[in-house]
Amino acid sequence: MIQLPGLIDPHVHVREPGQTHKEDWDTATQSALAGGVTAILAMPNTKPPIFDDATLELALSAARNKARCDYAQFVGAGPDNAEALSALANQSAGLKMYLDSTFGELRLDDMSLWTPHFINFPKHIPIVLHSESRTMAAGILFAAIYDRPIHIAHISLKEEVLLIKAAKERGIKVTCEVAPHHLFLDKDLTGLTPGRLEVRPRLASQADVNALWENLDVIDCFATDHAPHTVAEKDSASPPPGFPGLETMLPLLLNAVNEKRLTLNILIEKMHSNPCRIFNIPEQQETYVEVDENAAWEIRAADLHSRCGWTPFEGWKVKGRVRRVVLRGQIAFEDGKILAQPGYGRNIRA
Amino acid sequence: MIQLPGLIDPHVHVREPGQTHKEDWDTATQSALAGGVTAILAMPNTKPPIFDDATLELALSAARNKARCDYAQFVGAGPDNAEALSALANQSAGLKMYLDSTFGELRLDDMSLWTPHFINFPKHIPIVLHSESRTMAAGILFAAIYDRPIHIAHISLKEEVLLIKAAKERGIKVTCEVAPHHLFLDKDLTGLTPGRLEVRPRLASQADVNALWENLDVIDCFATDHAPHTVAEKDSASPPPGFPGLETMLPLLLNAVNEKRLTLNILIEKMHSNPCRIFNIPEQQETYVEVDENAAWEIRAADLHSRCGWTPFEGWKVKGRVRRVVLRGQIAFEDGKILAQPGYGRNIRA
Repeated sequence: MIQLPGLIDPHVHVREPGQTHKEDWDTATQSALAGGVTAILAMPNTKPPIFDDATLELALSAARNKARCDYAQFVGAGPDNAEALSALANQSAGLKMYLDSTFGELRLDDMSLWTPHFINFPKHIPIVLHSESRTMAAGILFAAIYDRPIHIAHISLKEEVLLIKAAKERGIKVTCEVAPHHLFLDKDLTGLTPGRLEVRPRLASQADVNALWENLDVIDCFATDHAPHTVAEKDSASPPPGFPGLETMLPLLLNAVNEKRLTLNILIEKMHSNPCRIFNIPEQQETYVEVDENAAWEIRAADLHSRCGWTPFEGWKVKGRVRRVVLRGQIAFEDGKILAQPGYGRNIRA
Repeated sequence: MIQLPGLIDPHVHVREPGQTHKEDWDTATQSALAGGVTAILAMPNTKPPIFDDATLELALSAARNKARCDYAQFVGAGPDNAEALSALANQSAGLKMYLDSTFGELRLDDMSLWTPHFINFPKHIPIVLHSESRTMAAGILFAAIYDRPIHIAHISLKEEVLLIKAAKERGIKVTCEVAPHHLFLDKDLTGLTPGRLEVRPRLASQADVNALWENLDVIDCFATDHAPHTVAEKDSASPPPGFPGLETMLPLLLNAVNEKRLTLNILIEKMHSNPCRIFNIPEQQETYVEVDENAAWEIRAADLHSRCGWTPFEGWKVKGRVRRVVLRGQIAFEDGKILAQPGYGRNIRA
């Protein structure tokens, strides 16, 4: 049995407000605890998006009532809310900017719209970018020009990890995360319907996957980008992109530790120490995760707590299982059972 | 009568080798002289492209025989010629990198392919980027990371000029040029067939055009991006993008001086002093251009020297006309007549 600190997932789509048929603050945080995750940072592209005072309160009041693990809520950058968001910064997980193909209130097509956010948002709270390939490079240039930290969400490409490496060596304040599906799956994956394969960033080439593994030292965090959609939605004619991931991240990575693809120290660094530092997350007292590193089991969606009802890792055999999660002195999860109650979770920014 | 120094056009598509039915070193340099331009820098995306020792010699031997004004030839970055090109740097105008939508030998889709060029190409010879919008930002990040000068070709957008301004303020070694058609035309232009409107970067919005004029101090050079295609090609079912411009740039800008939209000093700075500095072009001795700033006339393709046979400025009435061009002590152009002979032009890198 191994004891880990409480894991932090800085990239979770809780789907509440607005799409609670996919997930909500209750089911997302159950999934988190079952996956050894004791704090989640929730993304703002809900319905409505979290982009001002009122919508932030909408998300936080749902979380207050339902969350079973700790949490914070990102606010989303829009074309004209930079000043309003800077006033909300300390109540938020950080500022999320969608720089590739997002619509509605969070659309930021023109780079001129990025500038007020980089100028206004306080430097001690991170800006997280959804930015792929050249857009990522553009985002890093903004970090260099405005001399403030940014965190790149879900990198997936060789060109991305190599450019972040070069930018870090140059002293630019950039950190990044990778999602397990970009470490363990590639675009040649078979056995999933086309709709279930849809994810953004897309699954990449084997060369890209290899480059991520070869440059693991450049990657600061593992993050799920947990993005649940129902089976019916994924198998529909217009499948939305996204995979669930909260409950499978740690087992997949423990399995990789077992396979000597990374060490436990690296796992702890990228799932606890680094996210705590980057996102200014205070240490959760009396919080730890017990895992049986030798338990072999098979991932089955039927056993998971997400409302979405499927996983791209269905049938995968892994070694390493979460046995118990203790959150602030209370057993929150044990042997498959969620013991923390709705509302037990705390807002880490409160 | 006003006397100007010999003007430098750092962005000319001569079309030779390979497409001499559109233009060649003779007609391009006739157009240049008639436009008050005494040195041109030729782009490498010819057929074949200029991307190694042999193709550079192909272009330079044609220029040696035919050019009537001075010149230098860019070499083009490809996926695997970074080391070869660094050895040719001193014989070239500079390194051109096509970072948006180019095919064949000069294709550089993956940002990882940019790196060896930024590392290898000597810092005293410029790298010129065709890079629009976010790709431009990515290119500027490379300049910041590898701490070397870059020159952005044909900017056209508000977001581009504002980002270059911010990058310059931060000390990043970036310069840029704007083409007259992006200063005088916008996407709502009427009166041209769809094929003749095709140009890359595309004609932009009036707001973009206004931003270029409002930030003229950020723009280092005027450059034609002279890209001749025949009337038949432009009016075909698949019209290639590009405008001719060598012979209309100075008249249009003199007209703008007459309209008090810029000063003669700014014109000289952006068409002579700055390009000479940025591209390391030695002063052309006994070289000057005499213009009649009060001569009103109408631009007509029939009077121009380019082989392409059309201009997007057909019928424009302008005030300001080139009367005489003296190049290295010889009258090269006078009152509509080209007097310099083919082969009079010198390679400024020889």
